[in-house]
Amino acid sequence: MPAKTFTFGKSSVNYYFNDKFATLKKIVVPNNTVLITDENVYEAHQSKFKGWDTIVLKPGEAYKNQQTVDEVIVQLIQRGVDRSATLVGVGGGVITDLTGYIASIYMRGIRFGFVPTSVLGLVDASIGGKNGVDLGVYKNMVGIIRQPAFLLHDLSLLISLPEKEWVNGFAEIIKHAAIKDAELFKELSVHDLAYYRKNKTALAKLIERNALIKTKVVQNDEFEKGDRKLLNFGHTLGHAIENIYDLSHGQAISIGMAYAAELSEKLVGYKEKEKLVALLDQYGLTTYTKLDVDQAFEILIKDKKKTAGDIHYILLKKNGKGITYQISLKKLKPLLKSVIHQL
Amino acid sequence: MPAKTFTFGKSSVNYYFNDKFATLKKIVVPNNTVLITDENVYEAHQSKFKGWDTIVLKPGEAYKNQQTVDEVIVQLIQRGVDRSATLVGVGGGVITDLTGYIASIYMRGIRFGFVPTSVLGLVDASIGGKNGVDLGVYKNMVGIIRQPAFLLHDLSLLISLPEKEWVNGFAEIIKHAAIKDAELFKELSVHDLAYYRKNKTALAKLIERNALIKTKVVQNDEFEKGDRKLLNFGHTLGHAIENIYDLSHGQAISIGMAYAAELSEKLVGYKEKEKLVALLDQYGLTTYTKLDVDQAFEILIKDKKKTAGDIHYILLKKNGKGITYQISLKKLKPLLKSVIHQL
Repeated sequence: MPAKTFTFGKSSVNYYFNDKFATLKKIVVPNNTVLITDENVYEAHQSKFKGWDTIVLKPGEAYKNQQTVDEVIVQLIQRGVDRSATLVGVGGGVITDLTGYIASIYMRGIRFGFVPTSVLGLVDASIGGKNGVDLGVYKNMVGIIRQPAFLLHDLSLLISLPEKEWVNGFAEIIKHAAIKDAELFKELSVHDLAYYRKNKTALAKLIERNALIKTKVVQNDEFEKGDRKLLNFGHTLGHAIENIYDLSHGQAISIGMAYAAELSEKLVGYKEKEKLVALLDQYGLTTYTKLDVDQAFEILIKDKKKTAGDIHYILLKKNGKGITYQISLKKLKPLLKSVIHQL
Repeated sequence: MPAKTFTFGKSSVNYYFNDKFATLKKIVVPNNTVLITDENVYEAHQSKFKGWDTIVLKPGEAYKNQQTVDEVIVQLIQRGVDRSATLVGVGGGVITDLTGYIASIYMRGIRFGFVPTSVLGLVDASIGGKNGVDLGVYKNMVGIIRQPAFLLHDLSLLISLPEKEWVNGFAEIIKHAAIKDAELFKELSVHDLAYYRKNKTALAKLIERNALIKTKVVQNDEFEKGDRKLLNFGHTLGHAIENIYDLSHGQAISIGMAYAAELSEKLVGYKEKEKLVALLDQYGLTTYTKLDVDQAFEILIKDKKKTAGDIHYILLKKNGKGITYQISLKKLKPLLKSVIHQL
């Protein structure tokens, strides 16, 4: 497929939708390119990596830190990688976040691109130029915003994706539908995960549609001053509980979306929460989990780096229409207590 | 003095020439600003820092590394510094390089500005948006290019600057004259360091003139594809010998300039090397030092991350006119051997 080009500020990103890994040979100069991936992806797709200089990292968010960055940079120096080279992150969100960050700081910035290997990566993490690492308990505390040169989609890489990661990705897909796309919401309601896993054409369309939703939101607001905040639907509470209860990202934001739906009903007259909760449930996602609200609120405050004043909570006006709702932390806490099922 | 605004790509930088430290209160919100400085500057100017939240680092290039970055970031988190804050680097090149880098990656980038406290900082290091840290023996291996929001000059901060650092700064000033400004070259020739240290008006004019030379070069070529390379005059050999012989930056590039003058005579018909060498000498700078050429060439190659092919060596056509000269590493080595006094 020919590339579609999208611009973010003054950067252009070429998207290769529903394409093949082998196309990479046409996008980059193979002997001046280093691939970065993790052990899981590498082992599941060894034949694809043949002939490519590849750095293989340990998998998981626990390695999305400065130590990994330092180790990769030392390897790049040892390989003699210079400013003319390209780094390609082949993996999920952790790998693309790391690769984008390393490429942005190595020799003050070299070219990079991504081959996302998870649903979450395809529709969300690889898009928008946010990259970086965690610092201890603080997620994405360090990083920069810089767009990749290209995104290459090869859906055959999803063969190795564990069930749990499919569910994670669909949490973001349902989020997109809830905040921006009522028609997508309806489409999702009449299918399930098994349908999309079996039906390649439907999956390819779904991935492209969702990548475009995220892309358009970011294009209009690269530095998150307005509309991009909508992408945080479910994430304010979700991020807070993800670490406390060791939840997967998808499950955490699904719970966040369910309770945000409750708040939406209370605060802005949203009337479709049953449909949203049913859809989350239909795709294997948790909703009304019991939580320790006081503890979650503590983490939420730390995550927002605020102890007082207002924050922006993302609510729904209806399915397909997210809104930014400004609320003081003081008012938010009792409201959360009134809707969250207390542990 | 009112600020002068210069644009670099889509960034605007406000320059406050020959101003006062106290002006900082008008540029940033004091209780949402963190100053970063080193022990030397802090102890010499304690009264200026009163009332400012300040992080004080150990002085020296040895601390321009990722560990210092990590430590400062942890301190910023502990202080609850958020995206709305400003970081201000008050110091020489090490402090401004660190501050610019930390501000560029903390929470994916916050606002920053500089108050340079050395001649080198005022006329060179603080200008142009290059920032970053060293990785072991590799200088500036990690970093990004991002412009500060402002540069505030208070020349009274130079009171505490050691003699050696004055000489370092004048090496870059002479470099500017040699590559870009024949009139400045003449002015420098009729004065000496003592003159500028005594004569505040002349010093202020000299600093502004040199800051503008660097600024214009960078404005025309922010990402060093052309004219900005001229600023490397004296630096190709200079960087290589700086570490080997533990030279100050100014002494190293002065030696680099003297031998580049010899190469210029051989390769492009430059006829004024005696004047350049006399000027360097006049400002306390070393010129024809004996060197181990083989060793220096090894480091030069590593520094350029090349083992073969061409590099750009900066030569002089005449005083005031630098040029970029493309030469293969293979040809460069015997040429260097023919001009450098062998240790």
